[in-house]
Amino acid sequence: MARFFIPKEKLDENFLVLTGENAAHAKVLRLKNGDEVTVCDAEGTDYRCTVSDVAPNQISLVVQAVCPSDSEAKVRCSVYMAFAKGDKFEHVIQKATELGAYEIVCFPSARCVSRPDEKSLKKKLERWQKIAASAAEQSRRGRIPQVIALPSYKAALARAAEAELKVCFYENEEQLTFRAAIEAAPFTTAAILTGPEGGFETEEVQQAADAGLKICTLGSRILRCETAPLCALSALMYACGEF
Amino acid sequence: MARFFIPKEKLDENFLVLTGENAAHAKVLRLKNGDEVTVCDAEGTDYRCTVSDVAPNQISLVVQAVCPSDSEAKVRCSVYMAFAKGDKFEHVIQKATELGAYEIVCFPSARCVSRPDEKSLKKKLERWQKIAASAAEQSRRGRIPQVIALPSYKAALARAAEAELKVCFYENEEQLTFRAAIEAAPFTTAAILTGPEGGFETEEVQQAADAGLKICTLGSRILRCETAPLCALSALMYACGEF
Repeated sequence: MARFFIPKEKLDENFLVLTGENAAHAKVLRLKNGDEVTVCDAEGTDYRCTVSDVAPNQISLVVQAVCPSDSEAKVRCSVYMAFAKGDKFEHVIQKATELGAYEIVCFPSARCVSRPDEKSLKKKLERWQKIAASAAEQSRRGRIPQVIALPSYKAALARAAEAELKVCFYENEEQLTFRAAIEAAPFTTAAILTGPEGGFETEEVQQAADAGLKICTLGSRILRCETAPLCALSALMYACGEF
Repeated sequence: MARFFIPKEKLDENFLVLTGENAAHAKVLRLKNGDEVTVCDAEGTDYRCTVSDVAPNQISLVVQAVCPSDSEAKVRCSVYMAFAKGDKFEHVIQKATELGAYEIVCFPSARCVSRPDEKSLKKKLERWQKIAASAAEQSRRGRIPQVIALPSYKAALARAAEAELKVCFYENEEQLTFRAAIEAAPFTTAAILTGPEGGFETEEVQQAADAGLKICTLGSRILRCETAPLCALSALMYACGEF
């Protein structure tokens, strides 16, 4: 079934209208009267609709039912990833959105080679949010994860520490498995934190532990900085009964 | 510790020599007498060595111990992925190698847009095998997964069916979770099969079931064809106690 995002303020519980890019998309799909479509507020609520009129730049819909999206994960997992070189973060935004991340947070850490300045960051954030929106639509999510940039490693730790399950992955950790951390106690919110190309420094790992994060291994193979968060997120979704 | 792959036939249990690309790599690492390095046969055996002599194009090593690689997964998971457009398969080879795949197999299916002919496939296989080798080295694996191309969907099903756990992922499956398939019985070999951009056809899913594969869901979000195998592999490694 076709799926369209409409900003919450333009939503109505009885009648909806697809305009602009949504109308263009509807045209490509050749929607006609009677077809069923889903409209999402991008915050987890779905509007099941039927097409009632097709005009050149406007598709009218009648709302049949309003219900919570059935494609959102029960666990709210925030993906914290240190700034990485090239388009690695864009890759992680796209994939983490597909995999059901609640939000995606980037931050600087000691070994980050890439450190966008404020001006370029503002531009990047716009672009990153678009990537999340497009991936959310494609994967039929009911929510668009927010992409957030934090000014410091300390700020990332403080924010991640608010989650019920909070984990920092470190390649030199050999004892605590992610499974042990997941199975230690029930949780509905999670934060998974991974480092840049060169990994975290020992001191940073200590800071994470001091902030209340569990230091975990992702196994005996060294994962690239863009692979680690997606591996951890996939495992978390599996562990939480998503598939 | 630095890690080098040497073909099995050039290995010796007492003395080893790094030449060619390995010597060039050793030079970049500025190895000197007494340094410890690991040499792998790329089939799961590690040779722990000490540098005994450094010449311009040749590094001599004394073998201290021969042991099974400690970075290979206990489960042998074969990743079966239908031909995909662009460089998606290359992406999957790299990531699946990091994540511990035993081998990576590609095959044609009904909705494949990309279908390399025999000549271009031969060239591609060489390139793909190099990607696997490079990813194995970078992730410190003891084995280089083989990249295999099969001529038909039927051949892929027949080969996948030989594994103890064999699963075909289908986005319209709503009942059987991957977890249910994994927990049904113990296994040491697994095959996970995923489709091309447009997914599998209903008939193909039936053929997979007839061949003995379990048809499973990867959750309520639609994953891209390059995301699905890596999500499934990450979850499998987690489920098998790798991290």
